[in-house]
Amino acid sequence: MKLITFTVNGYSRIGAVVEENKVIDLNYAYQALLKSEGKYRYKEIAEAFVPAKMEAFLQGGKESMELAKRAIDFALSNGTDFIHQLVYSKGEVKIEAPLSSPGKMICVGHNYREHILEMGRELPSNPVVFAKFANTIVGPEDDIPFYPISEQLDYEAEFTFVVGKQARNVSEEEALDYVAGYTITNDVTYRDIQRRTLQWLQGKAVEGSAPMGPWLVTSDEITDPSGLEVVLTVNGEERQHSNTENLVFTVQKLVAFLSNLMTLEPGDVVLTGTPGGVGVARDPQVFLKDGDVVKIEIDKIGTLENKVALQKGE
Amino acid sequence: MKLITFTVNGYSRIGAVVEENKVIDLNYAYQALLKSEGKYRYKEIAEAFVPAKMEAFLQGGKESMELAKRAIDFALSNGTDFIHQLVYSKGEVKIEAPLSSPGKMICVGHNYREHILEMGRELPSNPVVFAKFANTIVGPEDDIPFYPISEQLDYEAEFTFVVGKQARNVSEEEALDYVAGYTITNDVTYRDIQRRTLQWLQGKAVEGSAPMGPWLVTSDEITDPSGLEVVLTVNGEERQHSNTENLVFTVQKLVAFLSNLMTLEPGDVVLTGTPGGVGVARDPQVFLKDGDVVKIEIDKIGTLENKVALQKGE
Repeated sequence: MKLITFTVNGYSRIGAVVEENKVIDLNYAYQALLKSEGKYRYKEIAEAFVPAKMEAFLQGGKESMELAKRAIDFALSNGTDFIHQLVYSKGEVKIEAPLSSPGKMICVGHNYREHILEMGRELPSNPVVFAKFANTIVGPEDDIPFYPISEQLDYEAEFTFVVGKQARNVSEEEALDYVAGYTITNDVTYRDIQRRTLQWLQGKAVEGSAPMGPWLVTSDEITDPSGLEVVLTVNGEERQHSNTENLVFTVQKLVAFLSNLMTLEPGDVVLTGTPGGVGVARDPQVFLKDGDVVKIEIDKIGTLENKVALQKGE
Repeated sequence: MKLITFTVNGYSRIGAVVEENKVIDLNYAYQALLKSEGKYRYKEIAEAFVPAKMEAFLQGGKESMELAKRAIDFALSNGTDFIHQLVYSKGEVKIEAPLSSPGKMICVGHNYREHILEMGRELPSNPVVFAKFANTIVGPEDDIPFYPISEQLDYEAEFTFVVGKQARNVSEEEALDYVAGYTITNDVTYRDIQRRTLQWLQGKAVEGSAPMGPWLVTSDEITDPSGLEVVLTVNGEERQHSNTENLVFTVQKLVAFLSNLMTLEPGDVVLTGTPGGVGVARDPQVFLKDGDVVKIEIDKIGTLENKVALQKGE
């Protein structure tokens, strides 16, 4: 499934994109299915198993995923006979970031083999990890806010996975079973702020600096997270281009590594690092400016495209 | 007020510690007060204004703080005439960390003037900031879990403030108005893991590595966060000793600095850095071991004491 969070009429809901252009409201579709089966408590049961918020839905694990699939089938064949609208066309809703309040946003640095080697560095024996906070997340139809606190706004295309099951001390062999799905994040970085101190957080934590989406492709549809092309363009010009087969620390290794340190929970988001070609590393350096369009494409997921929008000063 | 989160009979509640030894259940006390005023919807009103979870309570800001104070007075004079118990003695409940799921945990490094100067470094022009995640939080009556993934478990006494009001681009002058209160955190650090890479997060994010508490002293009782002695002992031996007047970046500066980057929300937690004397910097180095008792005392707040408990391997 391509799972989305969307807003319509001021409500935030989760859905699935099907047949290219249709959006199914998963919670209402499951309510409708339950009602058709004569369940009096269809609302409460749907709230328990297919809630309308992604973080809560992911807590239901594979059971909720299966129920959501049944709900999609039901909506496609019986979509009109329910008090709430079950099926929208994509243009009728606003697609938001798949998650808005993950418990953790963990980012990996220096993780593309070819980029590390071209920089003359040795391959690291441990991943470099740092954090972003949930206040950075914006959606695929939002602009990238550019706050006038820096002159070095930079992009970072990141293949991203979302945890689907509580993970503690998980082995690499079992790791993919703990992944709910995959999405795209632009780890927007205020480069000069990042480099003011040794710790990167301050340049990574600026409001709105993590465009994410457009959807979460569930892991049953991407059974091998390796071998996916990652391409980033700015105003159509290619700036980053690599493949997830170049990840030094694969999704499996990252799940094992991180779950050895901490308990990963459903909805936790891991950005797996960015390939070479960021603006600061180019010669000459080039940074994002108002109106630039940054587009990230990853195989089997899709395209995340956002425009940079300069914010007014104080 | 000394605000706590406590558990009793398996329920998690918020309370206030009064008269040294009494714990008032704030939500039930406010329910009782409302009921005594003839309010039919006392439960719902109390849930809205004085909910039983700290993060939600702090969203109510000063209005909820004032209602909580009225509820305390009511409970102390009319404590027995309600369906739920309003007043406990401290020994009857387990005191937990004041917050369990802050939206952000922001940590400041290198922030004590005398320590920076004794290390021969220059005073920084920007704070060093990094993150912990909420999975690190344990309470004042919990042990510090020591996972056998390191031989360098270290302590860091940290004067901590909690945000009480949404803050974006707040000035230093107004900053303290955005602080709900103060508590103590031990920023327990797996030093070798911290130092494996340039980014500190992995040594800071280990499960259970942020004992916090024992309570949140509201900012009406600590109107000046400077001038507070900070002392950390291990098994009674003094290891860290400074005063918050030595902070290079004061609470006011940190609120201004951080809110210039991101929106701070009620319940966000900021650890303001640790004084000199951590184990790794001693000569000879000394690290924590199973059974060690780490005690942090900060003026006007109190004492946070936890024992190190080695966890079994796999």
